[in-house]
Amino acid sequence: MNSALQLSERISRLNSSLVREILAATQTPGMISFAGGLPSADAMPILHDSDPSHDWRAPVFQQYGQSEGESILRSRLADWLKTCGLSVFDEQTLITSGSQQGIDLAAKLFVDPGTSLLCEAPTYLAALQVFQLFGAHCIGLPLTEAGISVTHLAEVIETQKPRAIYLIPTFQNPSGNCYSYDNRRAIAEVLDYYRLPLIEDEPYRELMYDTVDRTPICSLLRRAPWIYLGSFSKTLWPGWRIGFLAASKDLFPYLLKLKQAGDLHTNRPGQIRVANWLACSQRENDLINLRNVYRDKRDLMNNLLKNMFGHLADWNSPSGGLFFWLQLKHAIDTRPLLQNALSRGVAFMPGEAFYPASSDPQLGTMRLNFSHANVEEMKIGLEKLAQIVEAHSM
Amino acid sequence: MNSALQLSERISRLNSSLVREILAATQTPGMISFAGGLPSADAMPILHDSDPSHDWRAPVFQQYGQSEGESILRSRLADWLKTCGLSVFDEQTLITSGSQQGIDLAAKLFVDPGTSLLCEAPTYLAALQVFQLFGAHCIGLPLTEAGISVTHLAEVIETQKPRAIYLIPTFQNPSGNCYSYDNRRAIAEVLDYYRLPLIEDEPYRELMYDTVDRTPICSLLRRAPWIYLGSFSKTLWPGWRIGFLAASKDLFPYLLKLKQAGDLHTNRPGQIRVANWLACSQRENDLINLRNVYRDKRDLMNNLLKNMFGHLADWNSPSGGLFFWLQLKHAIDTRPLLQNALSRGVAFMPGEAFYPASSDPQLGTMRLNFSHANVEEMKIGLEKLAQIVEAHSM
Repeated sequence: MNSALQLSERISRLNSSLVREILAATQTPGMISFAGGLPSADAMPILHDSDPSHDWRAPVFQQYGQSEGESILRSRLADWLKTCGLSVFDEQTLITSGSQQGIDLAAKLFVDPGTSLLCEAPTYLAALQVFQLFGAHCIGLPLTEAGISVTHLAEVIETQKPRAIYLIPTFQNPSGNCYSYDNRRAIAEVLDYYRLPLIEDEPYRELMYDTVDRTPICSLLRRAPWIYLGSFSKTLWPGWRIGFLAASKDLFPYLLKLKQAGDLHTNRPGQIRVANWLACSQRENDLINLRNVYRDKRDLMNNLLKNMFGHLADWNSPSGGLFFWLQLKHAIDTRPLLQNALSRGVAFMPGEAFYPASSDPQLGTMRLNFSHANVEEMKIGLEKLAQIVEAHSM
Repeated sequence: MNSALQLSERISRLNSSLVREILAATQTPGMISFAGGLPSADAMPILHDSDPSHDWRAPVFQQYGQSEGESILRSRLADWLKTCGLSVFDEQTLITSGSQQGIDLAAKLFVDPGTSLLCEAPTYLAALQVFQLFGAHCIGLPLTEAGISVTHLAEVIETQKPRAIYLIPTFQNPSGNCYSYDNRRAIAEVLDYYRLPLIEDEPYRELMYDTVDRTPICSLLRRAPWIYLGSFSKTLWPGWRIGFLAASKDLFPYLLKLKQAGDLHTNRPGQIRVANWLACSQRENDLINLRNVYRDKRDLMNNLLKNMFGHLADWNSPSGGLFFWLQLKHAIDTRPLLQNALSRGVAFMPGEAFYPASSDPQLGTMRLNFSHANVEEMKIGLEKLAQIVEAHSM
């Protein structure tokens, strides 16, 4: 008897992920990568084990831990979130295996096949991938420099009855935009009115180079349920896989059980090292150093772009985050350019990939990371990219 | 306007997890735990950093890694799996965040709401929880000491058209049973005939105290797709969360993409330490030590049980794993006993919890872990438990 292999329906929605493929390509020796959100090796904090009361090598941390995460980390995380304007109890925090896992948990919480979900257009590729894997119908809200239109938001909520909204208001990925305070407040009012749950994703929050408002929209909500996602992958070491979420009390118990079902708990030595860093006197200097390194890199790329892409594209210099978002003057689809670029040793992200399946992608968009390449690589890589774009724009 | 909070359909199937609650309870100071599969602190290997070419503290391992896992770990894992009789290429291995994540990935791969899935009755609680969360209709196959009935297996496949089967053939959790070689071979023949995918879960494989056959059923398959799940949480440190899977080539690409969508990759320092341990000369001694410690504990508990539970229950001394499985002579439901036991400072797992929702649970069953408690705790804890059982058996 021959039965054909039967997989779940969601596997038919399992897109080949540009993120994974490009992460793999960037491991090729000599590849100049403007693709991922890879931190710069020379900007990484040196961790001092300054807190002997929480030695991450201690045998206790080698045992199974609790699904919520280490209590010392949850407590320091809650303290830090308060300084960000988000007042939460320790009990509302959950340590995740990178903030990517927070997206997986949010998708499990909200998404059935056919569920409408609002997001920005463009938005974070791997979030789209997860939401669409679970069967979400992702509806894109056009982005402006100051955020999204709240009139449009209210209309879409009325007509599409979405189950939740996913936003990256601070140094948005991929656009680099940062929502104004007025926009944040107006969005919170609309979400409160409809009690629409908000998933607010802030991996880039600490990477601020020019002073802008970063009030978490979650902190402005009075009635709508919310999940706030964050990560230590951009300020500390991504290889440790320490992310977190905080959530309103109505959602938290579900997220905790989903975390337990997903991988029991997050690795403990990594959690303890992050907890130590949050309490160490070095932290502020580490962040200042990180911002200085990245601000210089941003300014360098901005200048190089002016020279090499001035006649080819428009862009804003981002006030934070890790990316430039280019709009080519000739609106050609940049996806077919990727293979050509990779074969010449340069990786970038075609902007079209960041649009939900239901939106028409903005053609001629490219996302360029400025944190990873060094000066020399940046010059060579941008020059090659400009040549490729120019050749395709004829 | 007031909209009621709408969550995904799967949340209605999100059971309160005994595993998580009991893990939490066992963190209460003074609690004697026979509940979890917690390793013994004094049996944990001391890791020597014997492989300077792979320093887990190296900056390279602090960067993002590949979703598949570290190539050095995958290669050593494939070598080790060959010694277990499972011949795989490095490219068929995937490093997971504990083997619990392997179950999450398998569920995502196979399970839609209503999908029929075969499993043992009883079986691993947290696997049941995940499969049922995704909507599986789990059909339990009765266990005997030597395995499952292949005649019954073929019948159930014919009548129920399941999409996959989940088995724990070696030191089965919770029963402690170990499938005979003949049973393994016969099962493989049936699965090959129907091309029914096998999910084989072997976290306890290395914890063998009496010599028994442990041939992976996956290694006997010629046509059926398969996923083999394993863990380093039982031989090394659970707090690092390093598990793995190997899979047939038709399933592997899907599992890899699901892993990337789930948490990008597993923490790298933990992976490198495990890779170092797999290559270190100390490993065989570590395992001999571990087996000696646990064999003594098993024998101790067996003797204590004879004294305290001889008139109350029947059981077999398990040839491996971490658990005794008791069948009480009075077949009372042991679930209501748990709160009483916890309030008296003893944790155990009611056996009824290990049965899929569609099976009638075998009443009067208890799972007792023998690895975690020390001698004194074991005596006190079993005495209290016997009193509680006796009081409820009147």
